[in-house]
Amino acid sequence: MNGESGRIGTGEGESDVIISIDAMGGDRGVDVVVRGMGKSLKANPRLRFIAHGDADLLKRTIHPGTPLAERTEVRHADSVIEMDEKPSRALRRAEGSSMWNALTSVRDGASTVAISCGNTGALMALAMLCLRKAPVLPQEIAMLCLRKAPGVNRPAIGVHFPSLNPSGFNVLLDAGADIRADSDDLLKYAVMGASYARNALDLKRPRVGLLNVGTEEHKGRSELHDAAGRIAAVAPTSDFEYIGYVEGSDMPSARVDVIVCDGFTGNVALKTAEGTASLIRGLLKEAFAYSPLSRIGALFALTSLKRLQNRIDPRRSNGGVFLGLNGTVIKSHGSADATAMAAAIRLAFTLADHSFTRKLAARVGASDHPADAQQGLTP
Amino acid sequence: MNGESGRIGTGEGESDVIISIDAMGGDRGVDVVVRGMGKSLKANPRLRFIAHGDADLLKRTIHPGTPLAERTEVRHADSVIEMDEKPSRALRRAEGSSMWNALTSVRDGASTVAISCGNTGALMALAMLCLRKAPVLPQEIAMLCLRKAPGVNRPAIGVHFPSLNPSGFNVLLDAGADIRADSDDLLKYAVMGASYARNALDLKRPRVGLLNVGTEEHKGRSELHDAAGRIAAVAPTSDFEYIGYVEGSDMPSARVDVIVCDGFTGNVALKTAEGTASLIRGLLKEAFAYSPLSRIGALFALTSLKRLQNRIDPRRSNGGVFLGLNGTVIKSHGSADATAMAAAIRLAFTLADHSFTRKLAARVGASDHPADAQQGLTP
Repeated sequence: MNGESGRIGTGEGESDVIISIDAMGGDRGVDVVVRGMGKSLKANPRLRFIAHGDADLLKRTIHPGTPLAERTEVRHADSVIEMDEKPSRALRRAEGSSMWNALTSVRDGASTVAISCGNTGALMALAMLCLRKAPVLPQEIAMLCLRKAPGVNRPAIGVHFPSLNPSGFNVLLDAGADIRADSDDLLKYAVMGASYARNALDLKRPRVGLLNVGTEEHKGRSELHDAAGRIAAVAPTSDFEYIGYVEGSDMPSARVDVIVCDGFTGNVALKTAEGTASLIRGLLKEAFAYSPLSRIGALFALTSLKRLQNRIDPRRSNGGVFLGLNGTVIKSHGSADATAMAAAIRLAFTLADHSFTRKLAARVGASDHPADAQQGLTP
Repeated sequence: MNGESGRIGTGEGESDVIISIDAMGGDRGVDVVVRGMGKSLKANPRLRFIAHGDADLLKRTIHPGTPLAERTEVRHADSVIEMDEKPSRALRRAEGSSMWNALTSVRDGASTVAISCGNTGALMALAMLCLRKAPVLPQEIAMLCLRKAPGVNRPAIGVHFPSLNPSGFNVLLDAGADIRADSDDLLKYAVMGASYARNALDLKRPRVGLLNVGTEEHKGRSELHDAAGRIAAVAPTSDFEYIGYVEGSDMPSARVDVIVCDGFTGNVALKTAEGTASLIRGLLKEAFAYSPLSRIGALFALTSLKRLQNRIDPRRSNGGVFLGLNGTVIKSHGSADATAMAAAIRLAFTLADHSFTRKLAARVGASDHPADAQQGLTP
């Protein structure tokens, strides 16, 4: 077994991929998480899991003798970080929790990606403690683990946004890791977002846009003007195209692949889009329930409506990826069902299979030392 | 004629209401603006207009002898502010333009509300110059006119956002007048937004929420924490209810009426919602065009789809209102058609008929001197 990459087997693209799952975090309980794992394994036999949580409960839920039981290692955790727990409190009692154990298994190389449906703030705080760049003082070593990758001040959360692009998605970051970002952070987000789009969406040369209130050069905040110049400067040697400012209306557009913004704006934009989609879904339902004739219309339109529903189903884009750590961590939605959980696992597999953590670190390093970038990097 | 209120006649609720229109601003030309005026007049015979622009063109477009011609005064303007003109340049050559003339007619009391489809940045800059609080130095008097209302540092743009509330809309402000807001600005936005919702949406005690990345007290930026305390303190004497933080997903929700945020975030949220709605509209069309059967489904579903379309039609919520000036100014969408133009005129009429400018000024004044608020104010 190759501990560093969490892979079992010989070559990239063929070996098993091990995913660590914090099975205790979600709103819907262990059962849904396990069903998501089962669903994923049926679709992709290269998956293996390490499930962290209450061992008794997990062993009862994963029926013995099934393929899932065979490919899942259960590791007991004594405690669970609560959904409404403050990150500061979560940090103090992190050790021994299922969330912490999922992260340390990535740090220790037992798996490549960790997934949790738990509390976002706590997950980010624990991941930063566990997966940042190497600690300096010996006494810190005991308590710090995944740490930020070298060159990254602030990790970001990257999410998929439904779009008119062939892949069906754009990448938005930061979706809420931090409530502010200076021009240096925005530059790093651009580099990390492009690397993420190359690996998760299989794009050779992603188009990166900076979110602003207008596309004219003089519009918006000064840190954006500064970031715009710096992103444009690294783009040619970083294998992405910088297309300038984009607006909120471009979020689902086919003229951009990666949308860069601070985490406050990104979080509001993402949730506004979710709210708008849910409003329209509700109104559509209402419109079709209005009269006997409209109910007949609904019957005929059923297939078309399902096709639309699939396309904008938030479960399909479940999984916010923490970028900028020494390890890949995916935050699944708290209320994720088995389908959504399977989408997060599929994303985890793709990133692990592309050795994303290593490639991202190389890209971020190169953006700090542009000369190195000329050497030609992996995606 | 009562010059102060731009009204002709005797009592509120019965007299004519005069609206100033910058007829030259839009992307679609004078013809569409005039058709919107005609449409509005048919629905509401209490309307009168002052149309600012190329007099020859306007007189040709407004067919003589029609009711519209009878109730429209055409005032010639020599120039037009271009859609892509920088606000600074627009300010230098404002005088004599149709936009400037529409604003000065409000300042001079000839009309109550000005509407323009022109350049938003230029309109805000000209409106601030023209409709802010009284100037101090004599030499300033010649060049300054509408000025900010006393007590307001930054005017805000208030917009309607489709929602599940009975009125069909929530109010969002600031939608982009300024790219930042401190806690003092946010407090004023809350007071102005509540007053606007009382007058435009006919709500007695609007529920005001502060946009943040989570509803927990510790979430978000420090100016929001500060603003939250101050808004909660003025709410009891300002006839609105402060419901705390709201998230992007609450934008269309029925648990809030007025959503307060800085103009950068508001602009991105509004445009993201527009982009999302337009994505879903496109996908819905695509879903129904997919196969012969789905096309038959579309025929049966036509009425339901039209019902939905009407409900989320952005033309119905056309009109961003500049709040915090000594006069009401409405920015209509640049690409507004006659229906959208009519919606902006309907909004202008409602605000004028409620003497909104005067009521808003009283509210903002009272929030600066909370003791006065005990006296009982108009909405």
